[in-house]
Order: sequence, then structure tokens, then C-alpha cells
Amino acid sequence: MAFSKKPVNGMRDILPYESRVRDYVTGVIKDTYRSFGFTPIETPCMESIGNLSGKQGGENEKLIFKVLKRGEKLKLDEAKEELDVVDYGMRYDLTVPLSRFYAAHGNDLPTPFMALQIGNVWRADRPQRGRYRQFTQCDIDILGDPTNLAEIELITATTTCLGKLGFKGFEIRINDRRVLKAMAAYAGFAENSFDEVFISLDKMDKIGIDGVHDELVERGYDGGSVDKYLALYSELANERSVVGGMKTLSEKLGEYLSDDVASWMSGIAAAVEAAKGADFELVFDPTLVRGMSYYTGTIFEIAIPEFGGSCGGGGRYDEMIGRFSGQQVPACGFSIGFERIILLLMESNFTVPGDENRIAYLIDKKLPAERISEVMKEADAARSDGKQVLIVRMNKNKKFQKEQLTAQGYTEFKEFFAD
Amino acid sequence: MAFSKKPVNGMRDILPYESRVRDYVTGVIKDTYRSFGFTPIETPCMESIGNLSGKQGGENEKLIFKVLKRGEKLKLDEAKEELDVVDYGMRYDLTVPLSRFYAAHGNDLPTPFMALQIGNVWRADRPQRGRYRQFTQCDIDILGDPTNLAEIELITATTTCLGKLGFKGFEIRINDRRVLKAMAAYAGFAENSFDEVFISLDKMDKIGIDGVHDELVERGYDGGSVDKYLALYSELANERSVVGGMKTLSEKLGEYLSDDVASWMSGIAAAVEAAKGADFELVFDPTLVRGMSYYTGTIFEIAIPEFGGSCGGGGRYDEMIGRFSGQQVPACGFSIGFERIILLLMESNFTVPGDENRIAYLIDKKLPAERISEVMKEADAARSDGKQVLIVRMNKNKKFQKEQLTAQGYTEFKEFFAD
Repeated sequence: MAFSKKPVNGMRDILPYESRVRDYVTGVIKDTYRSFGFTPIETPCMESIGNLSGKQGGENEKLIFKVLKRGEKLKLDEAKEELDVVDYGMRYDLTVPLSRFYAAHGNDLPTPFMALQIGNVWRADRPQRGRYRQFTQCDIDILGDPTNLAEIELITATTTCLGKLGFKGFEIRINDRRVLKAMAAYAGFAENSFDEVFISLDKMDKIGIDGVHDELVERGYDGGSVDKYLALYSELANERSVVGGMKTLSEKLGEYLSDDVASWMSGIAAAVEAAKGADFELVFDPTLVRGMSYYTGTIFEIAIPEFGGSCGGGGRYDEMIGRFSGQQVPACGFSIGFERIILLLMESNFTVPGDENRIAYLIDKKLPAERISEVMKEADAARSDGKQVLIVRMNKNKKFQKEQLTAQGYTEFKEFFAD
Repeated sequence: MAFSKKPVNGMRDILPYESRVRDYVTGVIKDTYRSFGFTPIETPCMESIGNLSGKQGGENEKLIFKVLKRGEKLKLDEAKEELDVVDYGMRYDLTVPLSRFYAAHGNDLPTPFMALQIGNVWRADRPQRGRYRQFTQCDIDILGDPTNLAEIELITATTTCLGKLGFKGFEIRINDRRVLKAMAAYAGFAENSFDEVFISLDKMDKIGIDGVHDELVERGYDGGSVDKYLALYSELANERSVVGGMKTLSEKLGEYLSDDVASWMSGIAAAVEAAKGADFELVFDPTLVRGMSYYTGTIFEIAIPEFGGSCGGGGRYDEMIGRFSGQQVPACGFSIGFERIILLLMESNFTVPGDENRIAYLIDKKLPAERISEVMKEADAARSDGKQVLIVRMNKNKKFQKEQLTAQGYTEFKEFFAD
């Protein structure tokens, strides 16, 4: 078969500058989360195909790269459907592997278990600009803590991390599935229609309040409920404070919203505010839905002004681990939009700290062995001082060589001649 | 399909302690190699199946995890052989992807190009103790430098890195395919038998000089050649110095060994010695063969006393990139045995620097929200001082909780009560 120079369709090579930025960001993330007590874990990139096809993954399950059976297990001539010829699949997220990991090793892990995962995932999506079939996800999860301390730690750790990466003036938007439900119930929607109502609500950003209104009415919902629901939103629209939002809602919703939920949310806001290590605002967003149906409580999302749309998010999913492991475990997670953060940093021509002062030693092709030894010794001393020293043979076209090196970030040159 | 708690056959989950050690080692490797001017790159974990089946990978090509075609491209009912139903495969090493990467991006890369790759590779090997089907490789390669400066930098960078990881008293064994060939030619072997002769020679460690003798004679080689060959080895057996070895060989082999090769090897030894930043010895090893037939010049291997066998190695492969890209590019690489290094560190109960002094804040379940805010503020200050602070709810069995935390490396505790 012919050799192809290109990466496989929809995947890409990562060149030195981007790779360096990725390493730097990964380092900051790991250091920051570690300072909060998160511990890294890793799982294989492949899972049993059965684990990936459990309907937990929604649409992503249609996008699995499947791995062919090997040896005698592969019976190609008897095969009738895909599942006859594959046994593994590439993971499409880090949540399914985490659930399996916790089911397998939970007894050996502390409670609560605070996990950090940074790893590649694969989705056989239609390739499109800025969207790749292999990309990196970065998740932190706290398993086994039923209290809002989990939310407080997740939000504080994530915002501290974003601050260390240089992001300012961003927002963490927060809501709670229980708040969403209380509002829908108060407006008179039936419980089995909540998910559909939330899907419309989620479009507030794009289609506006009139658009949401029309969509709900078109779907056949009672006009009175729709009006009551949207009137409540209008009232909340200018309320950015979580504490203020909860106060308004408690007054309006009465017993539809339990006091526990209101104080749960206010408690998160107060503690996050107190521990604030970055320039951001925690904002109550009653239109925040987050697509995944597995969320059971708090939900949150990162909004960075430079970047339209979400740059990560998460929430509480108390019922998911149990569906995998058979044992209920309260869980809450926050995922940073790793690829988007890299993109934002690269677009701002970010220079990794320490990369500003690289030195290049250019050595004459005829430099005798003993002089090369001297150069090596000198470089060793400079590197021990924390400098980045490149040693290269001097080209005939030295001017061009230096220009190339300057483009790579080398600002200092030293030349060694055979004299 | 049933949910399986286990990782897929032959792969494994990496628990917090090991994962932390791996992160640390990865960090030291990246920092060290960067200080030498190596730049990180990444390629997708999958390659076109044609790229992986080009006979460059030897036995590894039999161990490829293959990826099923998707959508309309998959015609299961018409399929006659494996290649009809797959289009991609999981990479089994980092050298094939590097060759493809250089073929695709060479024009945008500096010359020489100094690449660092740390990444997972997959081989569907028979699972066995300590050998997994997904594992991490760590390669540095210098492409485009025909001089021995490449070897000098690769060996110096690698040994500096091992030194920073705490390894002492290890050896770098070095030889050259051209030395091997000169010795075989001098003894009277025909050129087309060299590879087979080297395979026997490679077993010197295991079967001894008598074993090598018998094997070569059994294979039908001329007894005179075998004796002459092995007599030369005996003479070199106690010569550990590269300079000494080259001197002896130059005297013995005369024009079979070119002066260029002798001074090439001696030049490497002198410069590596001068730049020595770690406690190791560079040793001439005339029995060093390194299996891969693609090596064309210098070859080397790491031997760590605590670990029987090789802990990494590499060499010059001037003809390989060209076979992929159609353009000859001199190349030399060094691969650290990443998984073995992790194993050695874990067996020595290695503690990652900075992990000795973790603090755990235990907070009473009834602590009111405003007090939690105070705790968060205090933790933020401690973390800013570089400390690792875990905040957890106090369990009923506080003694057991503290024991668990101590086992995780928490040495300091602070308790917050609702009073």
C-alpha cells in the first residue's frame, strides 16, 4: 500500500510551538489541581465495546472508532454485523472510563476520591474546521462527596487554574437542575415534559425569549404555562448574583423550591467568593441547562469573553456511577475545554515562560574534537543555570540560519570557530 | 452487552501513585530535553494501515490493533480479508509516525530538527507479566545532522535526564554497525552473512563465547573465520574505553576499519566525557548489535545495574526516513525505556519531590457556610505558598480517616469544628 504523508482523515499532527504550549498548559493544570488534592489517574484508550455502548454516551456512541478482533476470534466469513468482528472501541470521553475505574478500584481509593484525568478521546465525527477526531479532554471529578463542598472545590480549583493560565474577566455560570425543575413545575409544566422544555430554554442565547416562546407554543404547550415561565425569566434576567437569584426564586416559587436547594446554591457562591484566586465572576444563569441528561443537581459552565460559547463545564451526576458499578456514588465533575484554551493562547501568540531566552551555539564544521568537548562543557554549565542551549553546526549561510533560529525563539548566539 | 469492570485484556489502569510518578518523570524528561533544544511534537495515535504495513516495523507489524472502517466504506458482506474492513491501525512505535511527520512538515522545520516524543503505543502481544498492550515510549531524534554531534547531544541529554531522575552508576554501551562489519570482514565472513553472524554475537551475554562459537560452526561457517572473529573479541573483552577499543581495532584491523570511523567513535567519547552531568560510564561494547536492521552507524544502549537488561537505546538510521519520504535524511535517535524507569522508581518507593508535606483540612459536617468560606480563604493562602491542601468533610471515624490520609502522604492535619 502507498505511503501517505498526511495524518489520517480528521486527525492532525501537532507542531513544536503548539506542542510546547500544550505541555505548558498541562503542567499548570496538573500543578494547580494537585495543590487542591486531586490525584492523576490513567485508563487505557480502548474499552470493551460493551462498556461504550451502554446508552450513557448518547450521540457519542454513534461515533466510536471500533477495533477489529484479532487471531482466531475474528471470523470474517461468518460475520453478519459490526459487533461480530470487533471487541474494543476507542473511548469517546473520560467519564465512562472513570466510572469503570471506580467500579474496579473503588475499594482501594480514598473517600472522597478526587481524580484528575488528561487524555485523548476519539470521535468519528464529520471532520470540520477546528474540530478533530482525536482531541484532549481534561476532567476533574470528586466521587463520594454528597455535599456542596465538592462543587466549591471544583469551581475554585478550575478558576484558580484558568487564572494561572492568564485568563481574566471570565464568568462561571451556575444553575441547578433542581432549580430548573422547580421553575418548570411552578409554571405548570408536567414533569415528563421538563426535558423538552429545557431544550427550548437552552436556546435563549440564540433565538431570544420570543423564539423560546414560539417554539414552546408550537410544540403544543399551554400558553399560560409558557407565559408564566418566561415572565419568571424576565424577572431574573438582570439578577446575576446567586444569592440574589435564590432570594427572588424563594419568594416567587414558594414551596416549589426547597430551602435546601437555595442554601446549597448560596453556600457555593459564598465559599467560592471567599477563596477567589482569579479575576472572574460567579453568575447565576437560570437559562443554563447543559445538554447531558445525566446531571442531577448543580450545573456550571465557563464563559471566556475572548471565546464565544462555552469553554468547559460540568455538574453533579449522582446517579451515573451507580448505573455502571451497581453501587450508588455521589459524583460531581468539571471539565476544562482543553483544546479551546490552547487555541486561545496560540491566537494571542502566547510565549511559554522560560522560552524567551534561548541560546544557540553555532560551531564551525571543522572544530576539532577537543574544542567540541569544551563547547559541551560550557553548554552543560549554562543548562545547569536553567538556560536552554542548542548546539548546532554552523551552516554556510549563517545569516539565514540565524534568522531561522530567531524564528524559533533563539535570542542569543555564540559562535565557535576552528581558527 | 454486560458492563465489564476490568480494563480490556492486556491493558491496565494506572492508579494515583504510579500516575503521579509518571507525571513527575515526564516533567523531568521534558524539561531536560528542552534545555538541550529538543522540541516536543505529537502525532495521532492512529496511522493509515498502509503506513504501518511497510515492512519497516518487522515483527511489530503482526501486532497491530486495526480500526474498523466506518459508514458506507465498510462493506462487511463483501469482505474477503482483514484489509477489506479496516483503514487505520494503532501505531506500534513512534518512529514510523516521526518519519511521516517529517515527510509532511519537513519544509517548515529547522535543520537539524530535534524532536521529542512521549506517547502511547499499542501492540497486540500475548499478555504477560510486566508487559502490556498499551505502553508509553519516549524518543528523542535528531534529523538532518550527518555529524557525530547528533550522537553527542543525544547521549549527553539522555544521561543528564537519567541523572536528574536519581540514577547513578549506570552504563551507556556504545558500538557502531561499521565496527561490527569491519570485524566480520576482517575475520573472513562474506558480507551477505553479516546479519546472521551478528544475531549469534548478540547472544554473547546469554550463551557465552563458547555458545556463540558452537552456534556459528553449526550454522556452517568456516571454523577459521569463527576462531579469528572470537579471538578478536577475547582481546577486546577487557577494553571498556572507547578510545582504547578504537586504538586496538585500528592496529588489528588495518584498512578494514576506516580512520573516519575510529575518530568518529573517539570524538563521541571525548565530548560525552567532557559534558558529563551524571554519574555514568560510556563503555565500548563490541558485542552490542541492537536488533533492528535499520541502524546504519553508531548504536548505543542504557544498562542500569538495578535492572537486568537494556533500559533503552538507539542509534543512527540514515536510510530510514528516505524510505518513507523519498528524500534521504541523516537521522539518529535515542529511546528511554520509560516503563522500566517507572517500574524501578516505584520499586524503590520513590516519593515525588513536593509530595512529602501535604496538609489535610478536616471540616465538621455542621460547619456553617460562612465558616467554610474562612477555611477556603485559609487554604487559598497556603496553596499560594506552594502547599498541597486537601479539604474534606470530617468522617465519624476520624481516626480511620486520618490513617487513610496518612497512607496517601498527608502528614499535617487541621480540624475545623462547628463549635
